[in-house]
Amino acid sequence: MAYNLSTKLLRSKLMDGALVPGGEIALRMDQALLQDVLGTLVMLELEAMGMDRVKTGISVQYIDHSLLQQDHLNADTHQFLQSACERYGIWYSGPGNGISHPVHMEYFGIPGQSLVGCDSHTTAAGSLGMLAIGAGGIEVALAMAGQALYIPMPRIFGVRLEGSLPDWVSAKDIALEMLRRHGVTGGKNAIIEYYGPGLACLSAMDRHVLANMGAELGATTTVFPSDEATLRFLRARGREDAWRPLQPDAGCSYDLHDTIELGALEPLIALPSSPDRVVKVKEAAGQPVYQAYIGSSGNPGYRDFAVVAAMMRGRHIASGVSLDINPSSRQVLQTLSENGDLSHLIQAGARLHQAGCNGCIGMGQAPAAGRNSLRTVPRNFPGRSGTREDSVFLCSPETAAASALHGVITDPRSLDVPYPRIEEPMHIKADKRLFSPPLPLAEARRKTVLKTDNTPSLPRLAALPDRIEIPIVLKVDGNVSTDDIIPAGGRVLPYWSNVYETARFAFEPLDATYFQRASARVALGGHAIVAGHNYGQGSSRENAALVPAVLGLRVVLAQSFARIHWQNLICFGVLPLSFAQAEHYNVLAQGDVIKIENLYAQLAAGSAIEARTDNPGCATMSLRHTLSPRQIAILKAGGIINQIRDSRSG
Amino acid sequence: MAYNLSTKLLRSKLMDGALVPGGEIALRMDQALLQDVLGTLVMLELEAMGMDRVKTGISVQYIDHSLLQQDHLNADTHQFLQSACERYGIWYSGPGNGISHPVHMEYFGIPGQSLVGCDSHTTAAGSLGMLAIGAGGIEVALAMAGQALYIPMPRIFGVRLEGSLPDWVSAKDIALEMLRRHGVTGGKNAIIEYYGPGLACLSAMDRHVLANMGAELGATTTVFPSDEATLRFLRARGREDAWRPLQPDAGCSYDLHDTIELGALEPLIALPSSPDRVVKVKEAAGQPVYQAYIGSSGNPGYRDFAVVAAMMRGRHIASGVSLDINPSSRQVLQTLSENGDLSHLIQAGARLHQAGCNGCIGMGQAPAAGRNSLRTVPRNFPGRSGTREDSVFLCSPETAAASALHGVITDPRSLDVPYPRIEEPMHIKADKRLFSPPLPLAEARRKTVLKTDNTPSLPRLAALPDRIEIPIVLKVDGNVSTDDIIPAGGRVLPYWSNVYETARFAFEPLDATYFQRASARVALGGHAIVAGHNYGQGSSRENAALVPAVLGLRVVLAQSFARIHWQNLICFGVLPLSFAQAEHYNVLAQGDVIKIENLYAQLAAGSAIEARTDNPGCATMSLRHTLSPRQIAILKAGGIINQIRDSRSG
Repeated sequence: MAYNLSTKLLRSKLMDGALVPGGEIALRMDQALLQDVLGTLVMLELEAMGMDRVKTGISVQYIDHSLLQQDHLNADTHQFLQSACERYGIWYSGPGNGISHPVHMEYFGIPGQSLVGCDSHTTAAGSLGMLAIGAGGIEVALAMAGQALYIPMPRIFGVRLEGSLPDWVSAKDIALEMLRRHGVTGGKNAIIEYYGPGLACLSAMDRHVLANMGAELGATTTVFPSDEATLRFLRARGREDAWRPLQPDAGCSYDLHDTIELGALEPLIALPSSPDRVVKVKEAAGQPVYQAYIGSSGNPGYRDFAVVAAMMRGRHIASGVSLDINPSSRQVLQTLSENGDLSHLIQAGARLHQAGCNGCIGMGQAPAAGRNSLRTVPRNFPGRSGTREDSVFLCSPETAAASALHGVITDPRSLDVPYPRIEEPMHIKADKRLFSPPLPLAEARRKTVLKTDNTPSLPRLAALPDRIEIPIVLKVDGNVSTDDIIPAGGRVLPYWSNVYETARFAFEPLDATYFQRASARVALGGHAIVAGHNYGQGSSRENAALVPAVLGLRVVLAQSFARIHWQNLICFGVLPLSFAQAEHYNVLAQGDVIKIENLYAQLAAGSAIEARTDNPGCATMSLRHTLSPRQIAILKAGGIINQIRDSRSG
Repeated sequence: MAYNLSTKLLRSKLMDGALVPGGEIALRMDQALLQDVLGTLVMLELEAMGMDRVKTGISVQYIDHSLLQQDHLNADTHQFLQSACERYGIWYSGPGNGISHPVHMEYFGIPGQSLVGCDSHTTAAGSLGMLAIGAGGIEVALAMAGQALYIPMPRIFGVRLEGSLPDWVSAKDIALEMLRRHGVTGGKNAIIEYYGPGLACLSAMDRHVLANMGAELGATTTVFPSDEATLRFLRARGREDAWRPLQPDAGCSYDLHDTIELGALEPLIALPSSPDRVVKVKEAAGQPVYQAYIGSSGNPGYRDFAVVAAMMRGRHIASGVSLDINPSSRQVLQTLSENGDLSHLIQAGARLHQAGCNGCIGMGQAPAAGRNSLRTVPRNFPGRSGTREDSVFLCSPETAAASALHGVITDPRSLDVPYPRIEEPMHIKADKRLFSPPLPLAEARRKTVLKTDNTPSLPRLAALPDRIEIPIVLKVDGNVSTDDIIPAGGRVLPYWSNVYETARFAFEPLDATYFQRASARVALGGHAIVAGHNYGQGSSRENAALVPAVLGLRVVLAQSFARIHWQNLICFGVLPLSFAQAEHYNVLAQGDVIKIENLYAQLAAGSAIEARTDNPGCATMSLRHTLSPRQIAILKAGGIINQIRDSRSG
């Protein structure tokens, strides 16, 4: 049988389940990737599980988000993470080394291996023929503990690339074309697999752009073949031994399919404030530009900076424009410096920032209110730049640079200069001394994790009781996002390592008094939350489940759940139930008491759960669950951490 | 008569007064320097004065402090400042160009000219033979309006430099030796004038280090001759036309004097948390190092970075050390990149940050709590790094780099390598296109200042009434600092352009309810404050007077005042009075009502002011003032801005 490459990769990692779209499959993970903002909880989870040493082949903790350090908290967190890496056998990449995704690809990317990371752009490693999947922190922690990653089997979405890119059109324009055609949900529950003759004009780093922004299509991941371009990338870093060829079988088929004629593309731009509001640059041309932002994992290659430098050479940006250069990695910065590109950028008036995620996640370089910012980053959701009333466009480095030179949105083809075709350098000074490698086991066991008041150990969560009688402490509308549950931003992020401090911000955007009400119930058996449809949509942040669980959340009654948050609730011992009769959502009110008797027996017996309330409008109420026996066991244990810890001590 | 150089400079700028230490003198200002955090109020003051165009020869607004941009506020402020520069005829140096002091020296420094700036390190331009003085924002605004700068005539403190610096000892060590000998008040009410044969081994940028850190000695300013080194500095930037020789007369004398034998110096370090806690590096050696911080106006020269790069070449910093490189300017960054220095730094594991003030003022790179940070910055006051419980040492780049390599405080002479003597580059790409120059008058008049909700116009302050009957709304202890009155830090600084928002933080560290109580009194005639000794010490920030004035502060009764704050109170129309009987300070209480009749006649009649209160313990009270007739006129006008505006419209 002829398999596409995605299926071949899935087959090679399959530990349980069948490769039938929709069914749950268990996959072996060869590598794990952590970033700092979400890595702190993962380390605390490893501690809570009683971890001695991680079991994945390669696990790496990157410091790339929390780089601004306006007080001691972020620096303290770096020290905590480095010491936890020493203790548990994890590679540590300190601040200044750059963004996890391109750095991981450069130093650890291995075609054919699998990777799980607690960051939605983990998928970028698919550029090298890896099976790379973003997941919640607890799922990464479980993978590091040697367990499988469970995902619903995705459909395979083949995209054939024909022809080659014209001058002034680059990888970002292909990603934007995919978003223009398919929208931000076009890749949902799918692996996007690029193939075909058009690949020949895309370097491994160009492919990174596409694999990265598969996340914006909602894809489970993106996969590229491992070919000559992959070999060239690895050889330039002295890592050709890691290469192996990977291709789809001739005559294979796909569940979904599309074709892109690269030669027909022209420069594209996503308008504020969604990655799929894509138009041709010439249709947006002439609008004033306040900022041109180069960098992020959305355009991390040397080429993406060097092409801007070549365009800037001997020129100067327009007055009032902020051209912000954010090197994606230490290597890229060094190469730019050694090749003279940096000099052209600085002389042209650019601002050079430290290597890292930076403004892509609102950590610095927030634009002036209402002013147009053109960015090579992957996302332009409202406010993500740090400026609430922002106006962020997504485009290629070429378009951003042309616009910085003219002070208005400019189609780069309208510049009267030859297109600078940048050669990827063939010899990169890839220096693994920049990482702290895992210590030998005996030495690691002598290390102490440097905890502070801001990295308290996770509390043991209570087991789900067989009889529940708890009040509804919060009732919310539909489409509540994890951002509504646990806010991000410079004010809250430094506390994400601390469930107790984070708890003070829980549901703050919706109801700042939730924290007080829930706290008062912790010793009295906990509380329930009632929600509308699509509860927990958005970012996969696990503290949106963990923190309410710590505050005593036992049950969420919702009209429906977003998938990842539903999974996170179960992992942390919270029972997610849906209404059999939608009108009960309308009747229930804050303060009503929910009673469920013989819960264990009911869960085991089928999908229906009978409950009673003290609200006369729904004295009895029929609820539904879709839990597997594995998940019921997790809930009865009070979450997966308890389950693992107990299985070890048992 | 033989004059020292300082006296010659003062004589050439004198508009009023006699050059007798202690008396008030008025000096003509040729140039003005603004930084962003304090420049916003200056622009609003120009607006309030009805300014059409500034009258100083050269005025420059730098964006160097507020570079992090975590939300729209700082970016909005940059736009406000740029547009105000366009309107009023001011040079604008945008974010990315670097720190005001070295950049101003490079592009605008002219031996023999005078400079006033709203930043205490303005004095650094003394390195080129300028008379450069830091002052409050309103004083800079007045100078820009063509008025003189009033200062008490300082003593002249001659420091003769003998011999030349040994290997591994550099300019910072001379500055630290001065602090070791004379302490943080050793230069108070003095101009420090360096001279002698030892100057021959100090480049203009080395002299900048000393002139900059004169501020740490409390000096009015620091002056250097203009000689061959000055010419070399200007010539390398294509500015040799600006050069003129300036020397003290042979046989001149000084009010104070000291001699330093450079050959006898060795590497020095200031311990936490005062710049004068200076010991030899070898006495502090061996303590663990968390951070080595290179940059700031305290060590801004190319040399100061290149010597670190040379020491790092082919080596790597110790694990866990954060080596933070903060280029002082665009030119320095470019030269480091073109000369290959940057590559050595990056490869050695350094973090490269944007050009600007950065961590020196707690804007990023705050160290982990309690960990040792070695910095080439000028100040190490507690918490200035952004970390409340910090442990900051001051030292040379050589000492910081040696310590980063070893992970412990290290005397650089103990490294087994030859001392890298760095030649200052002879050809700097000084590119004035990086600035927006003043517009022609007609074009400037067509420009609109881009104001936002965060840059509201200053309110017209009320004139001091002839009869006062107001309650004491706040009573505070002695040594209240301007930091206690108006806090700084990332939380408050973005609002310093907005007196109404800043008002919410007034006296917050001492009494968070002051704002409410004072606000309630604004329409009822205002309020008084009672304070102990040395009221308003510390930073010169003028909003510590302006903001309480906006909240209706009319009178401060204090045991004594810090000089600059006393001056600021008068400028903003607040009457400063001291107690004739010290015990009245103890008796008065919050809520007591002060009554003063016939105030104008009393002020004119002499230094005594009779007041009554409703407190039986001091029903009548004798107070004192030391106001000049000029200052009484300012108070009666409701501050100097009213006075200027009224004189124009009158």
